[in-house]
Amino acid sequence: MSNRRINFHHEYQTTLMYGRYTKELGEFAKEEALKLEKQRRKEERLRNEELHKYRGKCASKLASAFGFIWKHTFAKLGEDWVFLALLGLIMAFLSFIMDHGISMCNKGRIWLYRDLTIHPFAQYMAWVALPVCLILFSAGFVHIVAPQSIGSGIPEMKTILRGVSLKEYLTFRTLVAKVIGLTATLGSGLPLGKEGPFVHIASIAATLLSKLVTSFQGIYENESRNTEMLAAACAVGVASCFGAPIGGVLFSIEVTTVYFAVRNYWRGFFTAVCGATVFRLLAVWFQKEDTVKAFFQTNFTMDFPFDPQELVVYSLMGVVCGLGGAGYVWSHRQYVLFMRRNKKMNSFLQKNRFLYPGIVALLASTVSFPLGLGQYMAGDLNTHDQVAGLFSNFTWTKGYLSVEESDILRHWTTKNTDVFVSLCGFMLYTWFFSIVCSTIPVPSGSFIPVFKIGAAFGRVVGELIHLSFPKGVRHGKLNTPIIPGGYATVGAAAMAGAVTHTISVSVIVFEMTGQITHIIPIMIAVLIANAIAALLQPSLYDSIILIKKLPYLPDLLPSSSGMYNIYVEDFMVREVKFIWHNMSYHELKSVLKENRRLRVFPLVENPDTMILLGSIQRIELIKVIERHVGRERRLQVV
Amino acid sequence: MSNRRINFHHEYQTTLMYGRYTKELGEFAKEEALKLEKQRRKEERLRNEELHKYRGKCASKLASAFGFIWKHTFAKLGEDWVFLALLGLIMAFLSFIMDHGISMCNKGRIWLYRDLTIHPFAQYMAWVALPVCLILFSAGFVHIVAPQSIGSGIPEMKTILRGVSLKEYLTFRTLVAKVIGLTATLGSGLPLGKEGPFVHIASIAATLLSKLVTSFQGIYENESRNTEMLAAACAVGVASCFGAPIGGVLFSIEVTTVYFAVRNYWRGFFTAVCGATVFRLLAVWFQKEDTVKAFFQTNFTMDFPFDPQELVVYSLMGVVCGLGGAGYVWSHRQYVLFMRRNKKMNSFLQKNRFLYPGIVALLASTVSFPLGLGQYMAGDLNTHDQVAGLFSNFTWTKGYLSVEESDILRHWTTKNTDVFVSLCGFMLYTWFFSIVCSTIPVPSGSFIPVFKIGAAFGRVVGELIHLSFPKGVRHGKLNTPIIPGGYATVGAAAMAGAVTHTISVSVIVFEMTGQITHIIPIMIAVLIANAIAALLQPSLYDSIILIKKLPYLPDLLPSSSGMYNIYVEDFMVREVKFIWHNMSYHELKSVLKENRRLRVFPLVENPDTMILLGSIQRIELIKVIERHVGRERRLQVV
Repeated sequence: MSNRRINFHHEYQTTLMYGRYTKELGEFAKEEALKLEKQRRKEERLRNEELHKYRGKCASKLASAFGFIWKHTFAKLGEDWVFLALLGLIMAFLSFIMDHGISMCNKGRIWLYRDLTIHPFAQYMAWVALPVCLILFSAGFVHIVAPQSIGSGIPEMKTILRGVSLKEYLTFRTLVAKVIGLTATLGSGLPLGKEGPFVHIASIAATLLSKLVTSFQGIYENESRNTEMLAAACAVGVASCFGAPIGGVLFSIEVTTVYFAVRNYWRGFFTAVCGATVFRLLAVWFQKEDTVKAFFQTNFTMDFPFDPQELVVYSLMGVVCGLGGAGYVWSHRQYVLFMRRNKKMNSFLQKNRFLYPGIVALLASTVSFPLGLGQYMAGDLNTHDQVAGLFSNFTWTKGYLSVEESDILRHWTTKNTDVFVSLCGFMLYTWFFSIVCSTIPVPSGSFIPVFKIGAAFGRVVGELIHLSFPKGVRHGKLNTPIIPGGYATVGAAAMAGAVTHTISVSVIVFEMTGQITHIIPIMIAVLIANAIAALLQPSLYDSIILIKKLPYLPDLLPSSSGMYNIYVEDFMVREVKFIWHNMSYHELKSVLKENRRLRVFPLVENPDTMILLGSIQRIELIKVIERHVGRERRLQVV
Repeated sequence: MSNRRINFHHEYQTTLMYGRYTKELGEFAKEEALKLEKQRRKEERLRNEELHKYRGKCASKLASAFGFIWKHTFAKLGEDWVFLALLGLIMAFLSFIMDHGISMCNKGRIWLYRDLTIHPFAQYMAWVALPVCLILFSAGFVHIVAPQSIGSGIPEMKTILRGVSLKEYLTFRTLVAKVIGLTATLGSGLPLGKEGPFVHIASIAATLLSKLVTSFQGIYENESRNTEMLAAACAVGVASCFGAPIGGVLFSIEVTTVYFAVRNYWRGFFTAVCGATVFRLLAVWFQKEDTVKAFFQTNFTMDFPFDPQELVVYSLMGVVCGLGGAGYVWSHRQYVLFMRRNKKMNSFLQKNRFLYPGIVALLASTVSFPLGLGQYMAGDLNTHDQVAGLFSNFTWTKGYLSVEESDILRHWTTKNTDVFVSLCGFMLYTWFFSIVCSTIPVPSGSFIPVFKIGAAFGRVVGELIHLSFPKGVRHGKLNTPIIPGGYATVGAAAMAGAVTHTISVSVIVFEMTGQITHIIPIMIAVLIANAIAALLQPSLYDSIILIKKLPYLPDLLPSSSGMYNIYVEDFMVREVKFIWHNMSYHELKSVLKENRRLRVFPLVENPDTMILLGSIQRIELIKVIERHVGRERRLQVV
């Protein structure tokens, strides 16, 4: 396996930001085919060696004992169930522990900045030091342990699930690098997410678990079975990340597959439910939460969530979010391409591996410093509190505020400016720095930043509508005030849907917020945003696949039904050039001369019957001619 | 087309209850292949005639005008979107109008029984007359117009979506019969549902709309495109039935397809959202509902929906519902088979087509007569009020009741008995009569009855738990009372999931109730119920497919990963019998004698090299032998 990784490493160029493959898919496939036989033998040998290693000394007894127990308990019970439950359990624990680590880092940073000192400069140093250190640690750790763990992981999973084998992406080293690197990255408080990496982590966990089980079971590893497991793993990744089992399953279907085998439907659900349940139960047991609740629980009224007239506004939000999502993907790609093109900056930054991460982390945390610009963008809140605030069920622009409400709003206003300035500042900061930070070579996702941008946009719209219609928009008997928090959820879902080109994000939002009251607005906005974004740009994952030049097999069929109006006759060559039996040398020469670009000529019996006898390559034909009427032949005859 | 239907009619035997096909799949396929050429020509002719008919007189101008408008507006805009939106719109209107008709019938019955008279016998006659009349009308109407509209329609849609063409199921006549028949059937108040028929109606609407559009568009009808449209139609059927767009899409994926093309994902969502939105908006506009709300809106607390310890009870409920679901499918099949076997009863019932429907309707409405047995089973409530009551957010067994609460409970208690008697009576009545009534030859579904059984079971469990732990089950600081309504939703989802073998029913429940607070319990219970039911019995739809002998292509691959341990060597024939070049007549004769059951023999070069040259049929071989060494040949030689 390690041999495989090193081999591959030559083709994988770790550039400043994203790595990229230097070879195109075609070349890659050819070489791969040549190597295949050699590798297979080597791998088998390595595998045997690995097994021998495991079975050396006392480990041998342990393994056989485990194998015996497995065989006589779980294997009989139906190993699938047990395997999937185990996967869900592992992911829930991983997610919980990582969340704990991240929140510890975040708390530490707030503590450093708020309680340690009162001098502004010292506060600034405290505010900046931790993120920079964490990012540098993460970048260094990831570089040493497994550079494949850089970035989101969803583009790679898409590639793997379409049948291209990128085995170095699913090793134990990558798992360790991704888990620790991601914890450090998110602990730094930069506007980055954990969804993509979590999908990757779950896939690695599934692969490793699968190997462990099969090595005890003695059944040969089957490729289809592996794909089934990976698809389930993608689902549990999302599920244990947000506590959203259904959304996770749908997201994994949408993002990773082309044809989904419905017989595997229950797999994803089962493991996702296991993951989400344990993830939420752990919160109850260890964090003394009341009970199993949603991740970003909202409390909108169910009696009158929105007026039908508001659907127009929601649809317009869908349009704007669609354009915004496409703009985000576009600006992300432009930034990466700009940085790659800019040779001076590149040569400067490439002097040291830690230069770029350090500068970006320094910049991002400087801008978000709460005593400086950070006050205009709720810079002192962590991601969870930001989203919880944006989704909160009270109108930010109303006159009277309760204590809890003003406690939330304290972060979103300053003495001189109102909430709109802070919301716009927050959007701009998150937009720009989520793009810049996502190019740092550390594990990170883009889902949550985009989600936050959308939530802030929705909150802006909601508050504006509230200001325009303080008593609600209805003309009827009752006038219920509008709910800006609902607009925030719609905006978040639409924006995230537009960037990822997924509809399932709406389900994730329902599960995250624990409310489904806004189902119609969210679905409408997400569908509109999706359609517009899909017209303008590829999804962020596809864009990264293009940037990284991953060996990705493109879609054969477009999703529009317009394709059914295209027939073979629309693009077939009508006047086929051909040669025929008993054609004269003169005719042959003219055919060859007139069609220099054709590489192969079909051979027919004669131009009337047009019965195909075979085909001949241009080169072969010329060789034959050369042999028969070429210079040497003529000389011979002479 | 009509010719096609008549042809088919010969093979389709309209028995007492379900129709069934008298031919097996193999025969059917052979004959089908023979007829294909003939039919194609006829259909083309008929089609042309139809077109001529349309284009006769003034209709011709109208059609071309419509075609022109379509071509220059919607077709440019992307006809898919418009087509799907139109489909959603049509289904929403249909669903709304049908709901209106059904509720009018129900109200009329209550009015007849309650306000017209006070004499018990007259009340009984009033109570019984309307259902019997409606069922008889429905049975007669359906029989005359289109017998194919009998039953659920989901089994047929499964068959059609797997590639078997049952065109008579998708005609305009079937649509009319199904819509009117279903309205009459459900108006009768028998324990039947509308989900299955709605899927069927949506599919017919999609097919007809598709034909209309293609006839104007001039593009040739494409089979793949049709399948795409049908899958979307199934989704909109469920969506416009319950106002559950996401659940509808998932349900259609689970129930109808084997491999789901993800590129069609948006289709289902778009049309389902259109359908659900318009369906709910119509309720706002015409029924003066406050705003867009869920179908069975619940109001459970979001602060503490359930204690983690209650998850054990939910899991046990999943087990019971799994067994119950399998039992339901089993007893349904047993009843149908029993009725088919019982020749005396059959010969009596077959004297008149209306005998069986009439007797069943009379029996069911007699048992549910509110002054008789009906008081023990909430017989005077319609389906919507029954479910709303079962899902209501208050404890039925608590001491003090508010006015609204006692108004709900009035139907579920009598002077002498408590709620448990009524709930059990309700369950038994629904179980038995939903099975019996589903065999009446009228359009009807089984989803809602099963859903109601589950809801009642959940309510029983919830009330029992409440009686055992009046102050809630938690040991911690706070003791929040448990919510029996939550148990009812869990039971409903688990039972419906077990009978239909779907997981998406959980999503449908979220969307129906407008709450997602119980996501974890519902998902766990549904998964467990599904697993158990799948072990014991096929799904209700598959069971009906078996009963009806529909030409259904079975699944190739089981869903368990155990299949990956089965190799070709496990079942391949190892000692292949063969004949070889230059074998002697004696050897040939012995091979032929020893293997009388083999129909084909492989021919190899010689037994050492075993190079396959071809194969020969036994009959051909014997013929050849006959010709060379047979009697005539010998006579010739002599």
